[in-house]
Amino acid sequence: MIPPKELIEIITEKNNFLILTHSTPDGDAFGSALALKFSLNLLSKRAEVYTEMPIPAQYKFLPGINEIKDLVELSPDKFEVLILVDCHEPSRVNNNEELISKITKFSGIKVIIDHHLERKNSDFHAIKWISPHEAATGMMVYELIKKLNIPINASIATLLYSALIVDTGNFQFDNTTEKELRIAYELVKAGAKPSFIYQNLFEGWTTNRLKLFIKMLDKTEIIPPFIIGHLRKKDFEETNTIEADTERFVEFLRILKDISISVLFREIEEGFFKVSLRSKGSLDVSVIAQSFGGGGHKNAAGYRIRATYEEARDKLIESVKNNKML
Amino acid sequence: MIPPKELIEIITEKNNFLILTHSTPDGDAFGSALALKFSLNLLSKRAEVYTEMPIPAQYKFLPGINEIKDLVELSPDKFEVLILVDCHEPSRVNNNEELISKITKFSGIKVIIDHHLERKNSDFHAIKWISPHEAATGMMVYELIKKLNIPINASIATLLYSALIVDTGNFQFDNTTEKELRIAYELVKAGAKPSFIYQNLFEGWTTNRLKLFIKMLDKTEIIPPFIIGHLRKKDFEETNTIEADTERFVEFLRILKDISISVLFREIEEGFFKVSLRSKGSLDVSVIAQSFGGGGHKNAAGYRIRATYEEARDKLIESVKNNKML
Repeated sequence: MIPPKELIEIITEKNNFLILTHSTPDGDAFGSALALKFSLNLLSKRAEVYTEMPIPAQYKFLPGINEIKDLVELSPDKFEVLILVDCHEPSRVNNNEELISKITKFSGIKVIIDHHLERKNSDFHAIKWISPHEAATGMMVYELIKKLNIPINASIATLLYSALIVDTGNFQFDNTTEKELRIAYELVKAGAKPSFIYQNLFEGWTTNRLKLFIKMLDKTEIIPPFIIGHLRKKDFEETNTIEADTERFVEFLRILKDISISVLFREIEEGFFKVSLRSKGSLDVSVIAQSFGGGGHKNAAGYRIRATYEEARDKLIESVKNNKML
Repeated sequence: MIPPKELIEIITEKNNFLILTHSTPDGDAFGSALALKFSLNLLSKRAEVYTEMPIPAQYKFLPGINEIKDLVELSPDKFEVLILVDCHEPSRVNNNEELISKITKFSGIKVIIDHHLERKNSDFHAIKWISPHEAATGMMVYELIKKLNIPINASIATLLYSALIVDTGNFQFDNTTEKELRIAYELVKAGAKPSFIYQNLFEGWTTNRLKLFIKMLDKTEIIPPFIIGHLRKKDFEETNTIEADTERFVEFLRILKDISISVLFREIEEGFFKVSLRSKGSLDVSVIAQSFGGGGHKNAAGYRIRATYEEARDKLIESVKNNKML
């Protein structure tokens, strides 16, 4: 995984960088974007990160998080280079059509650094560095920083360690190999504090969030090879929680023996569900997600569906049977 | 953390080793004991591990687990050297007085390799290698193996990686530092498979165990700085589960924000509770456990108490207030 020469040249020659990432950013998105910004700053370059606001509470501890600007205030044309991290299509940055169009039409140099499986027929023309085999975009940013001979300080180490543990489930998923642990070790040596970062990212549940979690567990259905959790609009209302509070719920459901796919249905509008799929081992849930118009990685994918919960659940079970994926 | 010279000499000179560990062995106990056995075997030495039976399901995947012998059949005097791993007192090995006495009176060479805080006034005279600052006894066995120049094969790597992730909560506790991640990397390079090991150790819950977990969550009390779960005898009966099924429950309770101590009371006999304490950061729960006659580490400790649940809970809360630990 070597950064493209073109990317190194652009970073060396240009001075004014805009960094964007996907909507509802997670640890890999924030971590990669901010680590890249800090690294560019260390080269005396101007770099700004813009994301959706507000920033979820668990990311408030990240170094540089307060320097992130609100996406609604973005004027891309003030920048020479636009770098898209942890996604590779302007439509993933935000739902706003005007904003997507502004990004798509950006007249400067466009770069993509991403570890998601590339969608075909994208009309976004950029220098692409897309490595779907990387556990996290943060791993790619790490390689880029090393290649540029930028010293990794404690802030950058904290950001990249956060990116890494969010996308490997703190070293529990199949994407955890020798390389991830070596880089984790390097980052801790450079100043990242494992338990401090873990506590901030994963152990900051509110009591309301715990109540929502209990609601999910109480209703969980085990239909091998699936374990299926679902949360309705009223579950969120009754516990005074939001969609972001379900982070890591579907990962928890992996805990059952002999269950290879865990699923969470979240009703984000009346009769409209966001579906998250997680698998163990060789089972590829991105294929299932794609059959419903979604996407993702082999062991972690998702899609959206307009249906009642029961219809959506039965369609999922049927689709897997019909596709003979199992 | 260098193994004592005496220990190296004994291993070099002697040929016949008995390895014992604590009762209700966990991943660090099994992993350390079996890794040590395999290493001695690689030096063409005879080595046997004896533990309590039956072996819990989650440890069945460990290399060599079927070679472990039943503690009830132990005749220590057939061996030249007795090595106690992950504990340092014969009374920790088993409840049987006769067996404890046999171990205590063992006439050969006695060695201790342990990372638990040493109890004073132990009358067990042995070559002691006790390093309470080590995250796991498996880390000490790793150093010993390196010192002896024994090549770490995939089986030994799997055993030591298991020891390490059980005692660091898969790299989430405060004992996860640069060193633990470096050794994790070395072990993966030597053949340990992180997600395979994680799944076996932590994701093998039965549906009954999930039901027990839900019972605990439903009754959880939040009394800052505590979050307190409790399980009564009837909870185990109703879900057809045993005490071993509560492994990792108390660690889950760490998940709440601004809660520094998580507690689990398990009723193992009518009116008799096993209590587990976990803390975050600098708070030392071993002091609390010691005040009730128990022990452990700074962030993970335990004790036993004969009382009703309500009495036991209130005593715990009071003791902490009185001791001004917070």
